[in-house]
Amino acid sequence: MLTLDSGLSLFGVILAGGSGTRFWPLSRSQYPKQVLRLLGSESLLQATIERLLPRIPLAHLAVVSNAAQADVIRLDLFRKGWSDIRVWLEPLGRNTAAAVGLAAVLMDREKDAEIIAVFPADHYIGNQDGLLQALDRGAELAQAGYLVTFGITPTRPDTGYGYIKAGKAVESPGGGFHCDEFIEKPELSRAQAFLRDGGYYWNSGMFLFRRDVILDALARHLPDLYQALSLVAEGKQSLEEAYQKIPSISLDHGIMEKVDNVAVVSAILDWSDVGTWEAFYNLTDKDSRGNALVGRAEDLDSRNCLVFAQNRLVATIGLEDVIVVDTVDASLVCHRDRVQDVKNLVERLNRQNLAESVHHPTVERPWGRYTVVDAGPGFQVKQLEVKPGQRLSLQLHEHRAEHWVVVQGQARITIGKEIREVATNESVFVPLRTAHRLENPGPGLLRIIEVQTGAYLGEDDIVRLADDFWRVSANDDTEPK
Amino acid sequence: MLTLDSGLSLFGVILAGGSGTRFWPLSRSQYPKQVLRLLGSESLLQATIERLLPRIPLAHLAVVSNAAQADVIRLDLFRKGWSDIRVWLEPLGRNTAAAVGLAAVLMDREKDAEIIAVFPADHYIGNQDGLLQALDRGAELAQAGYLVTFGITPTRPDTGYGYIKAGKAVESPGGGFHCDEFIEKPELSRAQAFLRDGGYYWNSGMFLFRRDVILDALARHLPDLYQALSLVAEGKQSLEEAYQKIPSISLDHGIMEKVDNVAVVSAILDWSDVGTWEAFYNLTDKDSRGNALVGRAEDLDSRNCLVFAQNRLVATIGLEDVIVVDTVDASLVCHRDRVQDVKNLVERLNRQNLAESVHHPTVERPWGRYTVVDAGPGFQVKQLEVKPGQRLSLQLHEHRAEHWVVVQGQARITIGKEIREVATNESVFVPLRTAHRLENPGPGLLRIIEVQTGAYLGEDDIVRLADDFWRVSANDDTEPK
Repeated sequence: MLTLDSGLSLFGVILAGGSGTRFWPLSRSQYPKQVLRLLGSESLLQATIERLLPRIPLAHLAVVSNAAQADVIRLDLFRKGWSDIRVWLEPLGRNTAAAVGLAAVLMDREKDAEIIAVFPADHYIGNQDGLLQALDRGAELAQAGYLVTFGITPTRPDTGYGYIKAGKAVESPGGGFHCDEFIEKPELSRAQAFLRDGGYYWNSGMFLFRRDVILDALARHLPDLYQALSLVAEGKQSLEEAYQKIPSISLDHGIMEKVDNVAVVSAILDWSDVGTWEAFYNLTDKDSRGNALVGRAEDLDSRNCLVFAQNRLVATIGLEDVIVVDTVDASLVCHRDRVQDVKNLVERLNRQNLAESVHHPTVERPWGRYTVVDAGPGFQVKQLEVKPGQRLSLQLHEHRAEHWVVVQGQARITIGKEIREVATNESVFVPLRTAHRLENPGPGLLRIIEVQTGAYLGEDDIVRLADDFWRVSANDDTEPK
Repeated sequence: MLTLDSGLSLFGVILAGGSGTRFWPLSRSQYPKQVLRLLGSESLLQATIERLLPRIPLAHLAVVSNAAQADVIRLDLFRKGWSDIRVWLEPLGRNTAAAVGLAAVLMDREKDAEIIAVFPADHYIGNQDGLLQALDRGAELAQAGYLVTFGITPTRPDTGYGYIKAGKAVESPGGGFHCDEFIEKPELSRAQAFLRDGGYYWNSGMFLFRRDVILDALARHLPDLYQALSLVAEGKQSLEEAYQKIPSISLDHGIMEKVDNVAVVSAILDWSDVGTWEAFYNLTDKDSRGNALVGRAEDLDSRNCLVFAQNRLVATIGLEDVIVVDTVDASLVCHRDRVQDVKNLVERLNRQNLAESVHHPTVERPWGRYTVVDAGPGFQVKQLEVKPGQRLSLQLHEHRAEHWVVVQGQARITIGKEIREVATNESVFVPLRTAHRLENPGPGLLRIIEVQTGAYLGEDDIVRLADDFWRVSANDDTEPK
């Protein structure tokens, strides 16, 4: 196991259970914020892990998420080849105290690290060196028995963040302060005073502590949570049962605000919690009129707007302080002062059970991806892209037949007992209840237009007989294709 | 021929050559404003004609448009079964004087009406009775030798319309006034004064005159135009040659403002020129916060906004005075004060040769319609809807093959010399350069998914061998399918 410069060994826990509804329509319940490639070519989760690799190897990292997001999280790790990273799934979201507690008890069984470092999966950090230095300093303090939190040196009177008031210095070679107070999101005047007075830090949601110290604190301050998880660790209770009894509370409220051994490590990280479209606007390059135009945006005379055009043409004229986010099947147009309300809007969409709040028309898969391009009564049309050398699971459907037309590349197609090579501009028919498999044996992309017909066309009409990926059970119907 | 109550016979000329770029993205250069079903189930053109039918029969109506819009105009008339209406096509748009002049000389050859009544194809009139009464009064004045224009009694100080200042009364049983002045779109204070003072009318762009009177006026005041069109009427010059020489000028500027025999008929018509999205907003029902929400719009706390959601989900939060128009392939978000600038934006899109300024993904055809649902390198996917009893032309393609999957209904398909019945969930392959025809012999809708493959997939790759509609020439490649 690797160790820090200080000689301490770290185990990294990435909290990746959030839904990120404030990023709708780019985020969906089955495509949460942490896997969005919002800032560059990596997802927020991938970037979070990448930043830590100089200190924490893949084998000493765990991602805590929840069952509903299991596939999308696994796929995001798979795309980086990070199969060594553990994925621990909560049956329900129960806020950060439960997620950290779960990691601590599961780690306890493994006995492989002394200090737990906890990171949200969906934040932005521009200054990696600063993070690694803060980790080194924090590990010293954690080793000395402190519950360590990272305080970000504020650069503006932000009213969207909680603050930490630093107290007197801790006696430690790594520096750091005792914590005088945790402060919820303040009014503007108060935030301005914090910035003027100094000694206040943004509460980043990153933590470091010894495993025994956090378990001790959980046992003392959140005994129900601790006991439920301990029974899980001892194999006396299922995770499902345990989570029914676990209170939903943040680590800040449940532990950090109640104990007196908190230490704050200050850090200058070029940090953002990327909490809203407004935060994304702040992180994005702007033109001379203050507009951040991403994608196929055509603007005439707008000011201080964000236009995020995923693939369609979006034209804007004479707007001010407006955010436009356009995706294949849904658009958001929101005043910049109201970005917090996107969450409320998504709750309304969820109550209506709208597909647009659950998933995108394009769905990523380990073998490539598919896009629903048309649908109507009794039919659905998909475009499938299969990466070179990949194949879908061997599968059959009870309720739908499929017509496949190869429009790019060469396919190897299994239908029943027969395997045949199918070239561009050729088609095959897959009858109901017939085992079939699609493979791309070639060096380039394979593209198929699939026309499905049948009375029921849901993704859960699949019996998977064999699979190259983690989707192994023939009875598993939660992960189609 | 029918006559008015007054005993006068009318020939109606509908000016339908406008492009209506201010209604982008709902209007496109190949789907202009006059065929939009903006207000109810009829297009603006259809509604314009429908309003006149109590006075002017179909056989005494002509639609003047231009060659580029020929198909879309013919289709709009075809859908109402109005095959008796003449369609006269200008090779180029040359404003209203040319269009009216063309109608007057073509009518002259036909010798079938004494009075020409001219109507823009793309306005709204709520009060049909008022229109018909105004027509009767105007026809009397026209018969007496006046060039008659309809002045709409203003209901607000609108700065988007031109005004007519009425002079002293004309001595005629139908009433009416001499015209003192034509006034361009005024400043607000001036428009307010017009409304306060009275005697001012909105210039509606509707006219009535005797054929000989307007021809005489054209000969005197626009001699180049008159001469060029006369040579066309005498068969001595092609329309294309003539239009190269014809000045682009409105009938108001070219004739009405120059002659002294103008009469104004005042009318209360509940009229709008439907000139911009703002005008559409004014004509649309609003909720208690002043929002006009059309289609799948979900709003949170916006005020005085228009959201026109053609088929996708559009969510708005906290906006004020914003217009959102969302179509399948393009969106517009525009401040209400800037609706006139949509035209400038479309000009910019035109310069970039963007498909989104030319046509919609869904294209209407006499046999039904098709929608491009997916496209990529070497392939395109369309959904075709064929109405009961209809069939496409017998055709072939030089550069593309087509895979057809029937997803609804039953098809009769000709491929080469073979005709076969193809049921739902069956497919056929149409090779390159093979004559083929698609027919819906059944009582319900026929729906086909067509996967095209080939190096060139343009709509103009078509050789039409036979057709049920007006698209008869086997060499005509301007009207695909």
